[in-house]
Parts: sequence; C-alpha cells; structure tokens
Amino acid sequence: MPSFIGSALRGNFFLMLGLWWSIKYPIKYILLKLDSGNPHSHWIHSMDIIEGTMKAFFALGGILAEQLVPGGPHLSLYDSKAQDWVQLMSWPHMTMYLFYGFSGVADVLVHTSLKLPVGLDRLLLALALFAEGFLFHFHDYKDAALTEHLYHLMSIAVFGAALCASLEVFQRDHTLLELFRASLFILQGSWFWQIGFVLYPPWGGPGWKQEEHGNKNFLTMCFFWHYAIGLLVMADPWTVKSSQRPKEPEFVHRQLSGSHGQHD
Amino acid sequence: MPSFIGSALRGNFFLMLGLWWSIKYPIKYILLKLDSGNPHSHWIHSMDIIEGTMKAFFALGGILAEQLVPGGPHLSLYDSKAQDWVQLMSWPHMTMYLFYGFSGVADVLVHTSLKLPVGLDRLLLALALFAEGFLFHFHDYKDAALTEHLYHLMSIAVFGAALCASLEVFQRDHTLLELFRASLFILQGSWFWQIGFVLYPPWGGPGWKQEEHGNKNFLTMCFFWHYAIGLLVMADPWTVKSSQRPKEPEFVHRQLSGSHGQHD
Amino acid sequence: MPSFIGSALRGNFFLMLGLWWSIKYPIKYILLKLDSGNPHSHWIHSMDIIEGTMKAFFALGGILAEQLVPGGPHLSLYDSKAQDWVQLMSWPHMTMYLFYGFSGVADVLVHTSLKLPVGLDRLLLALALFAEGFLFHFHDYKDAALTEHLYHLMSIAVFGAALCASLEVFQRDHTLLELFRASLFILQGSWFWQIGFVLYPPWGGPGWKQEEHGNKNFLTMCFFWHYAIGLLVMADPWTVKSSQRPKEPEFVHRQLSGSHGQHD
Amino acid sequence: MPSFIGSALRGNFFLMLGLWWSIKYPIKYILLKLDSGNPHSHWIHSMDIIEGTMKAFFALGGILAEQLVPGGPHLSLYDSKAQDWVQLMSWPHMTMYLFYGFSGVADVLVHTSLKLPVGLDRLLLALALFAEGFLFHFHDYKDAALTEHLYHLMSIAVFGAALCASLEVFQRDHTLLELFRASLFILQGSWFWQIGFVLYPPWGGPGWKQEEHGNKNFLTMCFFWHYAIGLLVMADPWTVKSSQRPKEPEFVHRQLSGSHGQHD
Repeated sequence: MPSFIGSALRGNFFLMLGLWWSIKYPIKYILLKLDSGNPHSHWIHSMDIIEGTMKAFFALGGILAEQLVPGGPHLSLYDSKAQDWVQLMSWPHMTMYLFYGFSGVADVLVHTSLKLPVGLDRLLLALALFAEGFLFHFHDYKDAALTEHLYHLMSIAVFGAALCASLEVFQRDHTLLELFRASLFILQGSWFWQIGFVLYPPWGGPGWKQEEHGNKNFLTMCFFWHYAIGLLVMADPWTVKSSQRPKEPEFVHRQLSGSHGQHD
Repeated sequence: MPSFIGSALRGNFFLMLGLWWSIKYPIKYILLKLDSGNPHSHWIHSMDIIEGTMKAFFALGGILAEQLVPGGPHLSLYDSKAQDWVQLMSWPHMTMYLFYGFSGVADVLVHTSLKLPVGLDRLLLALALFAEGFLFHFHDYKDAALTEHLYHLMSIAVFGAALCASLEVFQRDHTLLELFRASLFILQGSWFWQIGFVLYPPWGGPGWKQEEHGNKNFLTMCFFWHYAIGLLVMADPWTVKSSQRPKEPEFVHRQLSGSHGQHD
Repeated sequence: MPSFIGSALRGNFFLMLGLWWSIKYPIKYILLKLDSGNPHSHWIHSMDIIEGTMKAFFALGGILAEQLVPGGPHLSLYDSKAQDWVQLMSWPHMTMYLFYGFSGVADVLVHTSLKLPVGLDRLLLALALFAEGFLFHFHDYKDAALTEHLYHLMSIAVFGAALCASLEVFQRDHTLLELFRASLFILQGSWFWQIGFVLYPPWGGPGWKQEEHGNKNFLTMCFFWHYAIGLLVMADPWTVKSSQRPKEPEFVHRQLSGSHGQHD
Repeated sequence: MPSFIGSALRGNFFLMLGLWWSIKYPIKYILLKLDSGNPHSHWIHSMDIIEGTMKAFFALGGILAEQLVPGGPHLSLYDSKAQDWVQLMSWPHMTMYLFYGFSGVADVLVHTSLKLPVGLDRLLLALALFAEGFLFHFHDYKDAALTEHLYHLMSIAVFGAALCASLEVFQRDHTLLELFRASLFILQGSWFWQIGFVLYPPWGGPGWKQEEHGNKNFLTMCFFWHYAIGLLVMADPWTVKSSQRPKEPEFVHRQLSGSHGQHD
C-alpha cells in the first residue's frame, strides 16, 4: 500500500500550496488594490520569502520520501541482476519535486539580495510545471490504460497552471491569473488523492479495472466535479471579506471606462 | 427519440446566447465607441446582469432536463445490478451545464456589490468552455467513429471560444473578440442541432452509418457551411445600423495612424 | 489529369497573393515608417480595396472552377445511384475558396463606408485560414498515406498564417507579421504545385507511391527547401530598395533604446 | 561510428551558442539595466555582429560536415541503382543547418547598413527553430521507437525555444526570455550528445535496445536531469556578478510597484 501514501503526500503538497494561495491572493488584492497604497508591501514580501522556503523544504522532503518510502527505489536506478531499470513511478515523481525545489529557491533569491530579474520566480514555477507535465505525458504506461487516462486528465491542470505561470512572467500581480493558478493547484492536489483511491485503494484490494470503458468516462466527469468543488472552496474567502466592506457604486466606472489592458 | 430533444435543447442554449450577442455587441459598439461618450453605460450594465441571470437559469434548466428527460439517468450514477456506470451522454452534458451555471452567477456577482476583480466573468466563461471541450475530448466514444467525429468538429468551436474568452480577460470590451465569440456560439448551437439530426433523426429510423468514410468527409465540410451561414446571419445587424448613418471620411485616419494596439 | 490543373490553380491563387504582398509591404514600410509622414496613405488605401476586390473575384473563380472543371462534381453532392457522396477533393476546396471570398469582401467593406471595427479584415483572413486548415486536418484520406502527409505538411503553412493573421487583429501594420504572412502564402502556393506534381504528374503516369517510406521523408525536407527558396525570393525587393538610399548611423539608436514593444 | 561524431558536432553547435548566451545576457543585463545608461551599447552591438557571423560560419561548416563526413550522402539524393532516396539522417540535419545559416546572415544584416525592420533577426531564429522542430516531428522513424522518442523529447526544447524567439520579436531585450532561450539551447546541445551515446556508443557495440520499454521511461527522466544540470550551470555567472555589488534595499520597490508589464 505504499503507493497510496505516496499519492496522498503528492496531493497534500499541491493542495497546501493551492489553498494557501486561495487565501493569500484575495488578501493581497484587498490590501494593495482597493486601499490603493502599499503600506502592507513589506508584509507580503516576507510572506513570499517564507512561502519559497517552505516550498523548497517540502520539495526536499518529497524527494527523500519518494526514494526512501518502503517499496521505493532507495536511490538504485538500474537493477543489474534483472537487467532492467528500477523506477516504478518513484523516480519521475522525484524529478518533479526537484524542479519545484528549484522554484522554491528562486522565490527566495528573487526577494533577497541578488539583483535577479523580476519574474524569474514565475519563470521557474512555469518550468517546474512544464517539466512535470511532459514527464507524465512522455511516460509509457504500457497496458495500464486507466493509469494513463488519470495522468492525462491531470496534465490539463498541470499544463494549464504552466501557461498561467508563464503569463505571470509578463503580467505580474494579476489577481485573476494568481487565482486561476491557485484553482489548478487545488485541482491537481485533490486529483492526486483520487489517483490514490482509484489505483491503490487504502482499504486493500486491487485498483479499479484498467480496461473498463465506463471507468474512463466516469473519471473524466469526476475530474471536472473536483474542479467545481475547488472553485466553490475558493469562493469562500471572498464572501468573508466582501461582507466587511460597505457597498460603493464605483463598479460602473471600473466596468466601462478603465478596463482596457485591465491592470487592476 | 429523447436524444434528439436533448441535442436540440443544447443547441438552443448556445444559439440563443450567440444570436443575442450578435445583436448586443454591435449596438454596444455603436453606442459606446462611435458616440464617444458613455451615457448608455447603465443600460449596458443592466443588460449584463439580466444576461447572467438568464444564463444561470437556463443552465439550471439544462441540468434538470438532462437528468429528468425520459431515458435520462434520473440522478442514478451506478447501476449495481448491471455493475456498470449509468451515464449515456447525459451526465457529461449535465456537468457542462454546471460550469455555464457558475459562469452565469459570476456575471451577476461581478456587476453587483461584491468587489471582485474585473474580468472574472470572462475567466469563468472561459473555464466553462474549456471544461466542455475537455469533457468531450477525453470521452471515450468506443466504436462510434461518426459520433466522435461530430464532437471533435464541435471542439473547434468550443476551444476557439474558450481561447477568445481567455483573451477577453485581458482585452475587455474588444468588439472583434466579442463578435468572434458570438459567431462560435452560433456555430456550436447549430451544430448541436446537426448532431441531433445525424445521430437521432426525428423522423425515426437509425442514425447515419457510423463507419462510412464519406459521411465523415461530408460532415467536415458541412461544419464549415454552418459557420459560413452563421457569419452571414451575423452580418445583418451591421447593415441595418450602418444604413442609418451618414458616411464620413474618417476611416483613412483610423486605418493608418491610430491603429496600433487597436483599442477602438 | 484535371487534378493537376486544379492543384496548379490553387497554387497560383496563393502564390499571387504572397508575391504581391512581398512587394507591397516593403514599399509600405519604406513609405510610411522611414519617411515618417503619411502622404502616401491614400495610395495604400486604394491598393487595399483593389486587393480585396481581386481576392473576392478570384475566390469566386476558384469556386466555379472547382465545380465545373471536367471531372469535377458539377454541383452534385450525393450520388443516389451509387449511394455515396460525390466529393473527391473538389467540394472541400470549394469551401476553402468560399471563406477567402468572405475575406475579400470584408477587405473592401472595412475600407469603404461602413463603420466596421478596424481589424475585421484580418479576423476574416484568419478565419479563412483556420477553416482551410481544419478542413484538411479533419479530412479522412483513407489509405492515401502520402496524400495525407502532403496536406499535413501544408497545414504548417496554413495554421502558421492563421496565427499570424490573428495576431495582426491586435498588432495591425506590423511589418514583420505582414512579411511572415506573405512568406507562408508563397510556401502554400508553391506546395500546391508540388502536390500536383507528386499526385498527378502532368506528363502522365501514376503519382508517387503512397506507401513508400522514403517518399514521405524526402517530401518533408522538400517542404522546407520550398520555404528556403521562398525566403530568398522575398529578400529581393529589400536589396533593390536599400541600395537606393544612403547609409545612416541611426541603427544603433533603433537597436538599443526604442525597441521595447517594437512598433516601428 | 561516423554518426556519433555527427551527433556530437550538432551538440557542440547548440551548446556553444547556449553557453555563450548564458554569459552574454547576464553581462548585458548588468551593464544596460542596472547602470541605467547605455555607454556600452556599441560594445554589445559589435558582439551581435560577431555572433551572427560565427553562427553563419558554423552553419556552413555543419552543412559541409553532414554531406562530406565518411558515410554521409556526398550530395547524392537519389540512388537510382537501389531505387531509393539516399538520406539517412544527414539531409534533414543539413536542412536544419541551412536555416540557422539564414538566421546568422539576418543577425548581421539587421545590425549593419540595410534598413530592415528591428526584430527580423529574432523572427529568422524562430523560423530556424520551427523548421528544425517540424523536420524531426514529420520524419518517419519506422520501427526505431527509441530514436523517435529521443527526437520527440528534443522537440520540447526546440519548439520551446521557437516560441521564446517568437515572443522576442515583440518583446526585444527581455532578459528572462533571453535566458530561457539560452537554457533550451544548452539542453538541446547536451541532448544531441546523449543521442550520440544512446544510438551510436563511441566505445563500439550496438545502440540501446529500441523496443525496450524501460529505456524509454529512463530517457524521459534523463532529459529533465539534463535540463536541471543546465539550469545549475546557468546560475554560475549570476553568483560571480552579484558578489561584486553592494546590497541595496531597492528590491521592495521593484517588486511591488513598477512590475506591471515588467520591462526592467
């Protein structure tokens, strides 16, 4: 059953990031945009450094867990006795964590002393997501048609987030892009849990039947139900915040005049 | 024959939206851009709220219709007797309506009291379209080669509109994008009618032969004839409006100097 | 042998447009940008109207030729005797010309009295190209592997030009986009000639062997040799023009300061 | 063993360019952006001309080497005795070099006397990359599943760099795009070496087994390890430069106010 734990840990890594962002970015939006000053910039700045540190730390944890979990490869890559590669799915997942580790380090470096170009943090996040997406896209699942289908569905979330982070290199601090990215991380996180339940049920027994046609179609729908629930979860912080503020009629102006290019 | 009705209802949902937009956006263009004032902004603003309400209302109707139509799944998802999923094509279509419902709610919320970021309505429309597109892309049609071909052709319209709505997150009130989106909704609507006629002819009898090579090639062309007719229909409101106005020589200026970035 | 003539006519349609643009756009660039005035705007304006008229006229000619050429379908779509569609490749090509006809009409309308949004001409050109691309992408070539390969290669030029025209909706009068579009039209035109020579050799005899592996790989390279020659042809007008003008040291300035956003 | 040499030479061409850029662009960034003057513009300008000359020169060398290397085609394209094309992989690689040669010539012309539009050099680099990508994408590898996999992986780097260079047509001198392009050239270069080692081991013996499932999955990961190492190599020049400069507290400002559109 180690694989269920592995899948759940991966899910938690992405869920944690996504849920944190779904709280952080609405707060940042309220503080910076609507109050139209930046007395809070130092606070947000510190948050970003802590976030990067945590991301690098958990990525390192993920690398170690993938290797050292019972049933994992324990750093052996080639089994010379069996004349075959030892990899299961652990090595590709380790490689995935490696790039998220890079992204975490870049988050910290961009905000500290080095004079790196702004946007490098978003670029490395995009690279981590593209690397993850292509790793699973080019993986050969042999006859495991359902496993392949599950990872292909996930690649919608992964490549979507990768494109979103790439856009953020050019359009930094764009609230909608930040929220969209958060929603896709939540989706990816909950989908890793779903993968765990489908392929390695924690209550024992074999996984769902790989070759059954109905399973494939049900899971396609299920993926979008995950996303629908994720969107509802993300709507919560907004209801809290907006109930604290008086209504103002400024929305007409926002809507019809200052909206081209939309940088607010 | 329930499936013909289902397909026609879906077609009407998209046709209605597309045809309404093909009237609304030319009027908005004339009022706001050429008269270069915004005394009409409140009127357009109200239209948007009504449109969002209608969209959410019809999406709810669509969800109920997909479930409760004779021959539909009636909310049962798994048939434990037959040990198989109960889904036909109703559950994915219901999921599709669910996301359009979200989009309708977002339309209303963005224009009312909550201080949500501008562009959220377009983002949720894009998400609804992407969800629809991927739902049918990842659906396994088994041996129904013609059904698959019909839905793959439709995905051109769906993903096209999704990309268009995504661009509108950044370039709001861009008349050409709004018209392009309208044209693709009309195409999608009329194509759902075509799917109904091809797969479940209302005059009874079986659908067209799934495996016949000629059917596939004819329907590919037919899809673009639908679009050609849709474009001609969309041209009508413009002829009405432009005949009411005097000719002015300002087009030379518009064409050659102020055209970069093209926000007018 | 009618098909060789059809393919050559299609080739000429695109070659004509591409070669005309490869002369027109350098002249426009020199006149408008470097002389930094627009006394020539009326001249360019008239050119655009004539170009649109010609495009619509030739598209109409193409539609008639595809139908009425000996061996063409002569407007019959379904052969009730043989119980099969009458289409060969003529009907899809006719549909292709139809959309280029729309594009030609839009070119004229945008520049004359109707107050249509700027960029509509580029949008309809993009639609014509996308329609062409998808028509051949979704066509089922059955066992004709080489025919499929030839049209798939062409779709690089078609979709490339479609993306280019889409960008021009937002970045009008961008010289590099205009030249890139011209180069892809020249490529498409010369490739239609190549298709004619490969599938229906004008000196009689059967076309190249469909199933031969080497043919496929040779034609892939050959496609890019066509493009290389097209680029060399396009370079000619520039050498003529630049030799007439004195050298100035302003390029350093252009290169390093005013280059962001690059509108000149 | 000639193929190992060919693959290594190709690798060196891309490695050389990538490594040179990974030094050049950080220096340009420090000189032009942080010192906020352009006394060094002439120096950078000369570098670009030398770079273009070298690129054209090495591309010409590559063309000759592909043709004249022992075992190469020696300019013969069709073997009339065997009634088959003589191409192996040399002719497509020669075509690839041809487009890089064009790109080198454009680099020089844009910076010298001809009044060509700014960005033409980036456009021709993008075209060279797209040509390379499609050449290997549309190549038919027959039964050589591993060879196909190796080139498909490389196409991530090639198309990624092509998109990056296309963006640079519009966003010139954007440091992050320049560094991203450099990283993908390093990846492509080291991957050509890997291809050499896998398919034609220099210590003799046959290449890796084409049909083995594990080889495919290992090499997918391996591709991303190459990229990870490339990123680490690229980080070095930054550590050298930043250690020479005093720390300043300006990053808070860069981060939170002047970051939209991100041109610095």
